[in-house]
Order: sequence, then structure tokens, then C-alpha cells
Amino acid sequence: MNPADYLKTGERIDDLERNGLKIIQDPGRFCFGMDAVLLSGYAAPVVKKGARVLDLGTGNGIIPILLSAKTKARTLTGLEIQEESADMARRSVLLNGIGDRVNVVNGDIREADRIFPGASFDVLTSNPPYLPASDGLHNPDVPKAVARHELLCSFADLVRVSAKLLPPGGHFVLVHRPFRLPEILSGLSAAGVEPKRMRLVYPDIDHEPTMVLLDCIRGAKPRLSVDKPLIIYKAPGKYTDEIYTIYGY
Amino acid sequence: MNPADYLKTGERIDDLERNGLKIIQDPGRFCFGMDAVLLSGYAAPVVKKGARVLDLGTGNGIIPILLSAKTKARTLTGLEIQEESADMARRSVLLNGIGDRVNVVNGDIREADRIFPGASFDVLTSNPPYLPASDGLHNPDVPKAVARHELLCSFADLVRVSAKLLPPGGHFVLVHRPFRLPEILSGLSAAGVEPKRMRLVYPDIDHEPTMVLLDCIRGAKPRLSVDKPLIIYKAPGKYTDEIYTIYGY
Repeated sequence: MNPADYLKTGERIDDLERNGLKIIQDPGRFCFGMDAVLLSGYAAPVVKKGARVLDLGTGNGIIPILLSAKTKARTLTGLEIQEESADMARRSVLLNGIGDRVNVVNGDIREADRIFPGASFDVLTSNPPYLPASDGLHNPDVPKAVARHELLCSFADLVRVSAKLLPPGGHFVLVHRPFRLPEILSGLSAAGVEPKRMRLVYPDIDHEPTMVLLDCIRGAKPRLSVDKPLIIYKAPGKYTDEIYTIYGY
Repeated sequence: MNPADYLKTGERIDDLERNGLKIIQDPGRFCFGMDAVLLSGYAAPVVKKGARVLDLGTGNGIIPILLSAKTKARTLTGLEIQEESADMARRSVLLNGIGDRVNVVNGDIREADRIFPGASFDVLTSNPPYLPASDGLHNPDVPKAVARHELLCSFADLVRVSAKLLPPGGHFVLVHRPFRLPEILSGLSAAGVEPKRMRLVYPDIDHEPTMVLLDCIRGAKPRLSVDKPLIIYKAPGKYTDEIYTIYGY
């Protein structure tokens, strides 16, 4: 089959510049950003050989697809509520020939603890919507609004299901916005999914951080290690060496 | 009176390099560190003209003394449980001739809401003990142990009294260790002393942060602004310009 045969109208194939992987995206819906790439880089070291991984709200499947190259996970499952996005993710899996390890489930994060058995994943990942449902204007385009605003899933929902899907010692690795840190840290800690490692992502050393990466462990004792800063640009338009390493160039 | 007349055995006078201020310290007890200087720098912009400020656990009084130079506060009160430290702080106040604005109270943080009337301060500051009482060996030297370990005052105590001593809109500015961030942010937020501004202090851009500065506002809506990183060294042994500015050189 020709790669173009996997595409529907408006979609394109982007090269992920890693192990020849490609991804189908639709610029009219929601394209993956640096968030997803940094999250997969932060999660990769905790995904051990043979691990079962679930990505909550997988969109076009970017995170499981990247983790298929970066880890030796046995299974990488993506859960996505929007049927069109799940379908696009499934076609990317086929296009990459990684259907033996990566699968996509069309379903609601709020029901994830009914869709999957309890404590059935070693690692959860999520690049959830960052903004409260009430926060500002919603994108009139539904797929983008669902990805950005907590219209279908709140942070509290994510915390609740993560505590059920992880066994003690299991990891929940996520990316979020720093402005919600009090709610994020207190919610996770209260649910027993203890934040253990955190990294703030700064565009450069003269600006506020735009993202926060977190690695939480179910049932761990409270004690957070805050990593050195992750800095994106060393000069205007010029990535730091670490960003190039994470992207895999 | 000769400056040396203010000293007891073992004590010395250090120059604060700001407005001619000096401080009495005893190297056998606990000398102020960069934490106190950075905290006073972080707190200064929220201390408005005429403000009433209370420093919880003031030690040798370094924070009210620095804030007397950096702000137009009307009153700066230091609360200190150890009588010898409180006495030293009082002599520093006399030495500097700032007794009209700075006073020191010998008392227990846990009773601060009985010592002072409710909602009677515009700004609280604290450089509290960083380590849980149970965490590792205590310094056999009591004054140092009390300053470092939560032997006489836990973080929960600090949160409880801060909520009582501040009116709505009042600020609590503190410095702490990043490893306790989940407990700190959740405790403050749950008590309605909402973390609004946070800055991580990194020795340099290749290392983990060693301190966190927080500015909380009683009764504010949740939304945390995380500042650009505060970096101490630009080269080994060489402070960044910002550190020189905060120190006031």
C-alpha cells in the first residue's frame, strides 16, 4: 500500500525523524507539539522492558508511537475519546507497521477504570487539556477545543482513574502548565499517586516556564526531586543540545 | 556606645553592605544564609508603604533588618522562640538604630495567633526549618537543630497561623526546599493562603534547584505564576548580575 493510501482528505504524513517513524496529522484538527515530544522523553526512562503502557487522551497517537521507538515496552495503548482522532492514530500505527505493540482504543478517560482492569498498567502517560473548561473562550473547532480545554475530562478525573489503573510502584508521567501546579501536586498526592520527579521547561533562562513535566509513583513516600531546568532555546530560533537529543536528531 | 559593646562572647558583627546595616551573629549558633537574602528580595515588592510585617522564626532578625532597608514598611516584627536568638536580634536592632520600626518578640510560632490579633499583618515572611523532625540526624547543637529541623514548628503549624494572621489579600512570602513542594503547595492552598507566585533558585543551569521562593495571597483565586529561574552562579564562584542586585552591591 502506498503511504498516501492511509490518508483522508485534509491529512498529511509527517516524518518523526526517529527510526523512520511517521505520523498522520490533520492541521485542521490538532497537531502534536513539543509537549508530546518532551513528555515521551521524560517518560521513556521509566518504561522498562516488557512494560504495559497506557496513554490517556492520545489524540493522533504521537506518544505511544514515539515510545514504541524510545522504549522496549511490550504494549502501548492509546485511549482517545474522539473517533476521528482514534481512527487517524490507528492508521498511523498501520503505516508504521507497529500494530503488534501499539493499539488504540476509542473511549472516554472518565471510564478508563471500567474499560481496563484495575492496576493493569506499569506506566500511564498523559498530555491532557491544560485549561479549565471555564477558562476563556473555547476554540470554536471542537477537536481543538477538546484537546485544549477540560470539556470532556477534568484534572480530577485523570487523577481518579490513574490511581485505579496503576499498581503500587506504577508510574504516571504527564505534562501540564505550571500555573496549575498547586492543584496538580495536591490532587495527585492526595490520591496516593505521589509526585516524585518534576522538571520545568523554560523557553530560555530569561523567561517563565511554559510547561512542567511530572513523574509520579503510586504509593510512594512524599519527596519530590526537582530536576535541573529544561531550556528550549540557546539563542533565538536555535535549540539547545538537549532538545536536539530529545527529538532524536 | 561602641559597636563592640553590643556583643556577647562568641558573637561578631557582620556588615550587610546595604544602607550601612550591620548584624550580630554567633557562628556557634546559626548564621543567616543566602536563603534569607533571597527571601527579603522576593518579599520586598509586596511590602507596600505603611505595611505591617511579621517574620515567623526570625532567628537573629536578618529578614526584618534587611526589609527595613528595602521597604517602607511601618512596622517589622520578628517572632523568635529561642531567647538567646531573640536577644541577639534585639541588639542588632539597637546597633542599627532602627528600633522605631523593628521589634522582636520572644515567642512560639505555634502560638502566634494568640500572641498577635487576627488579621493584623499585611505581609508575613518565613525562612522556616526545612527538614521534617524525623528526617535524618539532628544537629547536636540545639540552636542549629531548631533552625534546620521542624522540632518546634511543623509546616502545618506555619500554614495554620498564617491563615489566621493575614486578612484577605495579605501576603505570606516564604523560602523552602523544592523537595517539599507538594506538601507546601497543597497545605497552603487548602488553608486558603493561595500560592500565586513561585520562583525556583538554581545554583546554575546544569543543576537541580536548591530553594523555592513562594508568594501566597490569602483568599486569592488559584492560579500560580512561575517566574523565570533565579540562577546563582554564572561561572564557578562568580555570581550572576541578579544575585549582585539582590544583595545590593
